[in-house]
Amino acid sequence: MDKSKLENSETKRDEIVLPYTLSTSSAIYNGWFMECIDASCPGQAFCLKVDPNPVTCLKSDYQDIKVLKSESYGNVLVLDGIINCTERDECSYQEMMTHLAMCSHKNPKKVLIIGGGDGGIAREAAKHACVQRVDQCEIDEKVVDVCRDHLESMSRGYDNDKVDLHIGDGFVFLKERKQEYDVIITDSSDPIGPAEVLFGLEYYKLLYESLKSGGIIVSQGESLWIDGGMDYMPELIKEISSIFPSVDYAYTYIPSYTTGQIGFILASKDEGTNFRKPVRILSDVEKSSMNLQYYSEKVHESSFVFPRFIQKVLDQCLNRN
Amino acid sequence: MDKSKLENSETKRDEIVLPYTLSTSSAIYNGWFMECIDASCPGQAFCLKVDPNPVTCLKSDYQDIKVLKSESYGNVLVLDGIINCTERDECSYQEMMTHLAMCSHKNPKKVLIIGGGDGGIAREAAKHACVQRVDQCEIDEKVVDVCRDHLESMSRGYDNDKVDLHIGDGFVFLKERKQEYDVIITDSSDPIGPAEVLFGLEYYKLLYESLKSGGIIVSQGESLWIDGGMDYMPELIKEISSIFPSVDYAYTYIPSYTTGQIGFILASKDEGTNFRKPVRILSDVEKSSMNLQYYSEKVHESSFVFPRFIQKVLDQCLNRN
Repeated sequence: MDKSKLENSETKRDEIVLPYTLSTSSAIYNGWFMECIDASCPGQAFCLKVDPNPVTCLKSDYQDIKVLKSESYGNVLVLDGIINCTERDECSYQEMMTHLAMCSHKNPKKVLIIGGGDGGIAREAAKHACVQRVDQCEIDEKVVDVCRDHLESMSRGYDNDKVDLHIGDGFVFLKERKQEYDVIITDSSDPIGPAEVLFGLEYYKLLYESLKSGGIIVSQGESLWIDGGMDYMPELIKEISSIFPSVDYAYTYIPSYTTGQIGFILASKDEGTNFRKPVRILSDVEKSSMNLQYYSEKVHESSFVFPRFIQKVLDQCLNRN
Repeated sequence: MDKSKLENSETKRDEIVLPYTLSTSSAIYNGWFMECIDASCPGQAFCLKVDPNPVTCLKSDYQDIKVLKSESYGNVLVLDGIINCTERDECSYQEMMTHLAMCSHKNPKKVLIIGGGDGGIAREAAKHACVQRVDQCEIDEKVVDVCRDHLESMSRGYDNDKVDLHIGDGFVFLKERKQEYDVIITDSSDPIGPAEVLFGLEYYKLLYESLKSGGIIVSQGESLWIDGGMDYMPELIKEISSIFPSVDYAYTYIPSYTTGQIGFILASKDEGTNFRKPVRILSDVEKSSMNLQYYSEKVHESSFVFPRFIQKVLDQCLNRN
């Protein structure tokens, strides 16, 4: 057993040099980036050791965009001071969000992505042989440009001929598309800033109308270990149930996100959709040719299993009692 | 939806004030405690907002012991600069470590805990009606004293008449007990410092000899998302398989631990033990009377389901290919 890396921990800990005061505009001090989502998750923060010089750093019309080169998580996309994705663990988020929805639909041919500027969701959606077209509507062209330049493992999603990228407002895009899509994936940042409207009921009504019969949606659903998430997510799920006949909630594990996990809201236009068992099982050959690092049907099923204290809240808002 | 907490994030983030230089001996600066396991998990760190005055802070013969009062995780036990447990999320670790093993045994009557100074594992083990006696051997009496004073929700485990606490070296304790226990739980800190020997093969041989026929062990098994964990845990699991005929590996989510999860090594003296399905299913009445916040049989089963890239490594070292 090679435990050499575990030695001299005392010495190494003494070397850590951290910022004295942080702000979003200049969040790197002495080689450490600190993410603090103090609004929704007070009293905790995650730090990454990074190259003191950001790979890139700019302000778009919508947000502050940075790519940092981290010591152990690869390149990191940071939007308004919050970690959006890292090269090391993005597989968890991108694969789970995409394939939970895609494998809950018998034959998804036309997919829409709202947001998802890094390109990782497009990369995953286009992998399904049955998919003929992936439309994507991202509001911030600068995020796409930055990811094309510095997060190639994700942005190569745009190189697939099936993928058609539109720059614009997801709300407006949806209003013009009625009953067009089999699956709609909303890959948004947190409900602070430009993504706030994507957590409202008005938005879910538009999603419903843009889906074909039997269509399925999946949206970013925060974490129920976060105070902010537990405060409003169950209420949102309940409200979505007044629009969609089938609604469920899953999660995935991702080390670089606050609390180490993030949830997904799933909903279907069909009554009686059981998201907890995939209707399309990917064969081992398919999983390998799709280069899946994270998703399997067992992972799919277990992503609906919550600790008792969370399950109780979900059972109540999903009317499963 | 109450989203008031999500507002003014920019302002709040600007208020964060962090340490300039950290060391284990004085790790609280301007109200933030930073945990950095740089040896096994380089380049990342977790921070908690805490009362600048530790609840307690002392040095025992074995380690540096602190209890901090955090803003959002309750009281926090910190050993040698590493978060050992927090009042907010300890249920995950204590319940999963205990009940994964306890519910894999048909009728556990006599249980041994090595380590577990906070008392939380004793609290959980004693909850099983079939259990007649819980021996516990903790090397550091000062950890027990500190937890009795400041982490009552865990240390009340010691108040149960079934629990018999011994202060001493787990190695010596095991050598004197042959074929005595149905379940042995090793609740150790990381393999740096006093707990290092509890990750060696010699220790696992002693565990085997102290178990009754059909006996089961569970041990703290790091995280396979940590470089250090992935470097040596698969090798350790392989080596344990040369002593125990049945070995498996599970994990649980816990926000305050590095990477948000921690693993468990499970092993049985019986060939063909299937840890992945509990042999004792706790009824809803039992789960409620045991006041379980985290564990259920579904959570038990899903704790063996890993992402594909980890599953591949485990399948190899568990000879499941």
